[in-house]
Amino acid sequence: MAAAPEWRFDPLTGRRVLISPDRGKRPLHPTGHCPFCEGHEAETPPEVLAYREPGSGPNGPGWRVRVVPNRYAAVRMRTDSDEPEALATGVPSPVANASGSFGLGIAEVFLECPHHETAFRRLSVEQIADVLRAWRDRLRFWRDDGRLAFAQVFKNEGEAAGASVDHCHSQLIALPFVPPRVADELKLAVPGGECAFCGWIAAEHNGPLFVTDSDRFVVLCPFAPRFPGETWVLPKAHYPAFEALGDGEAAELAIVLRDLLIRIDREFAGPDFNLIIKSVPFRYDGLFHWRIELLPRLTSTAGWEWGTGLLINTVFPEHAAERLRNA
Amino acid sequence: MAAAPEWRFDPLTGRRVLISPDRGKRPLHPTGHCPFCEGHEAETPPEVLAYREPGSGPNGPGWRVRVVPNRYAAVRMRTDSDEPEALATGVPSPVANASGSFGLGIAEVFLECPHHETAFRRLSVEQIADVLRAWRDRLRFWRDDGRLAFAQVFKNEGEAAGASVDHCHSQLIALPFVPPRVADELKLAVPGGECAFCGWIAAEHNGPLFVTDSDRFVVLCPFAPRFPGETWVLPKAHYPAFEALGDGEAAELAIVLRDLLIRIDREFAGPDFNLIIKSVPFRYDGLFHWRIELLPRLTSTAGWEWGTGLLINTVFPEHAAERLRNA
Repeated sequence: MAAAPEWRFDPLTGRRVLISPDRGKRPLHPTGHCPFCEGHEAETPPEVLAYREPGSGPNGPGWRVRVVPNRYAAVRMRTDSDEPEALATGVPSPVANASGSFGLGIAEVFLECPHHETAFRRLSVEQIADVLRAWRDRLRFWRDDGRLAFAQVFKNEGEAAGASVDHCHSQLIALPFVPPRVADELKLAVPGGECAFCGWIAAEHNGPLFVTDSDRFVVLCPFAPRFPGETWVLPKAHYPAFEALGDGEAAELAIVLRDLLIRIDREFAGPDFNLIIKSVPFRYDGLFHWRIELLPRLTSTAGWEWGTGLLINTVFPEHAAERLRNA
Repeated sequence: MAAAPEWRFDPLTGRRVLISPDRGKRPLHPTGHCPFCEGHEAETPPEVLAYREPGSGPNGPGWRVRVVPNRYAAVRMRTDSDEPEALATGVPSPVANASGSFGLGIAEVFLECPHHETAFRRLSVEQIADVLRAWRDRLRFWRDDGRLAFAQVFKNEGEAAGASVDHCHSQLIALPFVPPRVADELKLAVPGGECAFCGWIAAEHNGPLFVTDSDRFVVLCPFAPRFPGETWVLPKAHYPAFEALGDGEAAELAIVLRDLLIRIDREFAGPDFNLIIKSVPFRYDGLFHWRIELLPRLTSTAGWEWGTGLLINTVFPEHAAERLRNA
C-alpha cells in the first residue's frame, strides 16, 4: 500500500509542510529511455486528456499533447486502502498535539510534445497553443469537479528549476484549500474595489518595466522581482481565470510566450526556469487578474533566504526589461 | 561608484525583495586559485576579527579563523558617495509610488580554516569550536554597535546550497529591521508566556523526533521539516541569544554539531546543506530560545513552491530521526 501523504503543521514556527513519501520515489535523473515520448504510452498511467490526430486511439501514438495522472503524486484522493489511522502521526509530543492531516488533492502531468524536445521555446507556436489549451481544459475540469478549491499549473525546465525529467512537460496540482500565501495575495489585487493590475498595465504601457505586447497580452517585469529577468505575461483586459482563455487567445498568447522565452534565453544565457500560472482559485468570491510568471533560476536560495524569508536579486527590473525589449 | 542596494516592495504581491547589483559581481564558480586560503590575505578586505597564533600580525598568515567584510555585500552602510538620489527609482508607475529604500546593513564572511578544506565536518572539533566562537563574537559586536536590529548567521556548503566558493566559510548579514517572517516566528515561541521550545525539548527526550544529545545540547528533527533530514540543535536550558555561548559550551556544541554532520553525511549521501542560526534579534523585548537549523538540500524548490508558498518534503521526520539515531 502506498504511504499516505500528510500535512504537518509546526506550531513552533507556524510552518505547514506536506510530507509525501511517494513523491520521493520518482526517478531523479533522466536515463537514456524517456517514458514521455510517443510510443511509450504504456509507461504512464492512462491519459485523462489528449489532443489526437483523427483515427488514433487513447493511450497509443498519434497525440500532440497528452495529460496523465502523476505516478509520483504529492497529493491524492482517498482510496479504500487508506486506513482511518493513517491520519494519526504516532508522534506523542506537544508539537504534535494536532496530528497531521491527509494530503488530499490531485496531481497531473502534461506531456507537451510527442517527440523528445527539452526546451519549451523550441516547440512550434501551434504546439505551445495546444499546451495552453490543455492547461485551460484541465483547470476547467477540476473547477467543475467541485471537490477542490485551488489548482496550481506550473512548469519546471532544467535541473536548477527542479525538473527531474527533461522531456518538455508541466504539472497541475489541485488542493481542497487555498494556500495561505495565495490567499494573502488575493487580498492585494483589488484595493478599493478596483483591479490594481488593470491600473498597473495601463500606466506601465511603454514604461520602464514594459517588455513587449500584442493585441490582447502584455509582458512586464514586476517591480520587486525574485530573480534576474523575472517577467510576467498578463491579459490587457480584466480576466480573473486562466480557464476563460479562448482558442484564438491561446494562439496569440503562444506567440507572445514563445517570443519572450527566446528573448530570455538570449539575454540571460539560456537559464533554467519555472513558469507559474497565477489564476483565481476555484472557490473565491473576490476579483483577480490572471498572469503567467516566468522565473529564470539564475540565483539559488541559500541560508540567508531560508533563515529570513527575504530574497536577494542582483538585477533591477527596469534594467532587465530594457535588455529584454532590445533582445 | 558601486550601485546602491535597494529594497523594493511590490504592493501587488506584498513581496519585499532586495536588489543588490554588487552581489551579482561575485565569481560564481571556484577557480583553481582560492582567495580564502592562508597566504592570500591580501585578496580579501582587511580582517575585522581573527584568532591568531601568538606573534602573527593582522592580515597575514598565522590565523585559525578570520572574519572579513564581504567584498560582494548584499547590503552596506551609507558612504559619502551615495547620492540622495540613489533613493529614487526613476520608475513612474502606480506600483512604484513608494520608491525603493537604501539596502542598509553589513555583510561579513567567516573564513573557517586556513587550509583548503571544503567540508565543515572534516574540520577538527577545536577548529569548529573556534568558528562557533567567531560567530558569537561578531554577533556580540553588532549587537553592541546599536545601529542594527537583526543579524542572520548562515553557512552554505555545496553548490546545491547556494555556495559560490568551496573553501569552508560562513556569513553574517545584519539589517536595521527584523524581517517580517522572523517577527512572525518570534510571536509563536512563547504562547501563554511559557517557552514552547523548553516544553518541546523536555517532552521529546528519547521520543520519536530525538536524534542525540550532550549535557547541555539536544538534537531533534522538527515536526514539519522542509527537507529530508532537517535537524535542529538546541540548548537544553533557556537561552534566547546565541551570543551568550560560553567558551566551554562552544567546545561541547562543536562535538555535537560535528557528530551530527557526520551522521547526516552518512545517512543522506553527503548532501549539500545550509546551516542557519536562529537567535533572538538585537532589538526585541520578548522571549526566544535559540537554535541551529541544518537543512540538507536534497530537494529543490520548483514552480509549485514559488507559486503556492507550500513546501513538499519526502521523508517523515520520525523516520529521519530514527535513521540519524542509528547512523
